[in-house]
Amino acid sequence: MPMNRQAKLARRPQPGMLTRDVFTIEDGPVPEPGPGQFRVKVGYISLDPAMRGWVNDAKSYVPPVGLGEVMRAYAVGHVDASNHPDFKTGDAVQGLFGVQQYALSKGKLVSKVDPSAAPLARWVGGLGMPGWTAYFGLLDVGQPKAGETVVVSAASGAVGSVVGQIARIKGCRAVGIAGGADKCRYVRDTLGFDDCIDYKAGGLAAKLAAACPQGIDVYFESVGGEILDAVLPLMNLFGRIPVCGLISSYNAQGPTPGPVNFRAVLTKRLRVQGLIVFDWADRIPEAVRELGAWHASGQLTIREDVRSGGIDAFPETLNLLYTGGNFGKLVLEV
Amino acid sequence: MPMNRQAKLARRPQPGMLTRDVFTIEDGPVPEPGPGQFRVKVGYISLDPAMRGWVNDAKSYVPPVGLGEVMRAYAVGHVDASNHPDFKTGDAVQGLFGVQQYALSKGKLVSKVDPSAAPLARWVGGLGMPGWTAYFGLLDVGQPKAGETVVVSAASGAVGSVVGQIARIKGCRAVGIAGGADKCRYVRDTLGFDDCIDYKAGGLAAKLAAACPQGIDVYFESVGGEILDAVLPLMNLFGRIPVCGLISSYNAQGPTPGPVNFRAVLTKRLRVQGLIVFDWADRIPEAVRELGAWHASGQLTIREDVRSGGIDAFPETLNLLYTGGNFGKLVLEV
Repeated sequence: MPMNRQAKLARRPQPGMLTRDVFTIEDGPVPEPGPGQFRVKVGYISLDPAMRGWVNDAKSYVPPVGLGEVMRAYAVGHVDASNHPDFKTGDAVQGLFGVQQYALSKGKLVSKVDPSAAPLARWVGGLGMPGWTAYFGLLDVGQPKAGETVVVSAASGAVGSVVGQIARIKGCRAVGIAGGADKCRYVRDTLGFDDCIDYKAGGLAAKLAAACPQGIDVYFESVGGEILDAVLPLMNLFGRIPVCGLISSYNAQGPTPGPVNFRAVLTKRLRVQGLIVFDWADRIPEAVRELGAWHASGQLTIREDVRSGGIDAFPETLNLLYTGGNFGKLVLEV
Repeated sequence: MPMNRQAKLARRPQPGMLTRDVFTIEDGPVPEPGPGQFRVKVGYISLDPAMRGWVNDAKSYVPPVGLGEVMRAYAVGHVDASNHPDFKTGDAVQGLFGVQQYALSKGKLVSKVDPSAAPLARWVGGLGMPGWTAYFGLLDVGQPKAGETVVVSAASGAVGSVVGQIARIKGCRAVGIAGGADKCRYVRDTLGFDDCIDYKAGGLAAKLAAACPQGIDVYFESVGGEILDAVLPLMNLFGRIPVCGLISSYNAQGPTPGPVNFRAVLTKRLRVQGLIVFDWADRIPEAVRELGAWHASGQLTIREDVRSGGIDAFPETLNLLYTGGNFGKLVLEV
């Protein structure tokens, strides 16, 4: 008899990296869909930096995952049983299905995806939430104009890689920041950014200045900390800083210092604006359409880093995000 | 024979408070207006926090004052000689006349003012640049809606006092932060803010939370440092933070830490935006008209802190801004 393997939140984590005992991995029965429900057999689970915040018992943009609950996660899979008129057995679907093998849904915030247009895993990667985040964060918040310079941190990551490519599509100079020579080569040569700087190699501020001779008009922020401090002095008047993540602080053991060069916000009249993709929930079809078209025409390259090991490997695999151990959008194969 | 007493920049200052030897006070000849020029006999000089930045040899929103040049300053006075068709002897005018008794001008960025509608000193106070800053910073950047809560730092100061009163006029709850019981009483009882918190009395975060039961929608920032850190956790989703000044850092002896609670920008999708009133140069007549109408109808109370001592007293009087030693818009009588 098949079972439903699940990762449940066992306890609130200590500050710092997640340890294995924060989750219990256990087998439950495969659930049967009730009236108006369908069941999804999960294929791939998206591992996202935001997950570290979801397990803290702290007020944030979504409620924390409760103790004993299945860990929240975006995932993609196929409907394998349905009492829902709009979702049929065999449909490929993406949604908040959690870290488990089988999920029930009533269809809320679930999108059908087309596995013939892109591999299944990609629908929780660059064509999923990270792609939407890049799309709205850059275009709506960053508002780049052709000819401007857009700098992107975590440039080889799920969001950053798409941000820089959209910037290029819109006629901007795209400069990435990534960790390590391999990632930088990928960002330049495969993704087509104009330049990419290895922050691990030292001399970030000087290299960034050299790569941005016209200054920086938009800085797409996913990291925070030292990288933000290196960027701020180079920002042009009326620059925009969409803040999509501050991953450098997520595992912090205490308060983390804010940007030392914060005063640039005043002297350069910068606009620093936080964003979470849920705020554009009603416009997601637009993002899916545009990203899909760029992907189909070859203008948008997307890379997943698919890890095996199933539900059991979830805690260790998630931690790769905070050590820069992944290369491309991190996805767990179930 | 009358002379023109002037404060000139003698050397770049060390970090920290300005010392007297940064300026030389000297007498020059009273200048004669050339073709198209007029001469102003200065009555009052505006002392502004931004002056500390103007004397540093650092790139900012305006070029630094050059060594040997008359110190830059807004001032108000009367035309006492003119070869300019639009400015006649006796006209009361406001402009960038510098720290001196007599100034020449071609009329650029000079406004005529009406001393019968408000005392002369007020035209470099709440009806001058600080008032315009409050007007555009709150309404254009902060975009308060009726029923929202607006928190104002330096609430008894030239800008903050006007910000809170405009917030009230627009139907918002206005909560001030000021230093000392006297200033707080003034902010509440005379300016009509709903509440005012004395940051010197301790317990700022808890008092602010109590004064803002619905959270904070707009925080008008003039101070930075600990006050910003106390405000950030109380900001509501999609809150706005116009940054008009960061006076707590202007005299810093080295890098100042940024806001520890910076992460709230992300989780609450805040918009943090720097502003300098010059960016609205073409709309200043609108601000003058609106502020003047509110002042005339009694909805806008303005207080100057006029200091005597003339040009010689400039360095010491300016430093009052950084110690909170002034009460109301600081103005030097010439």
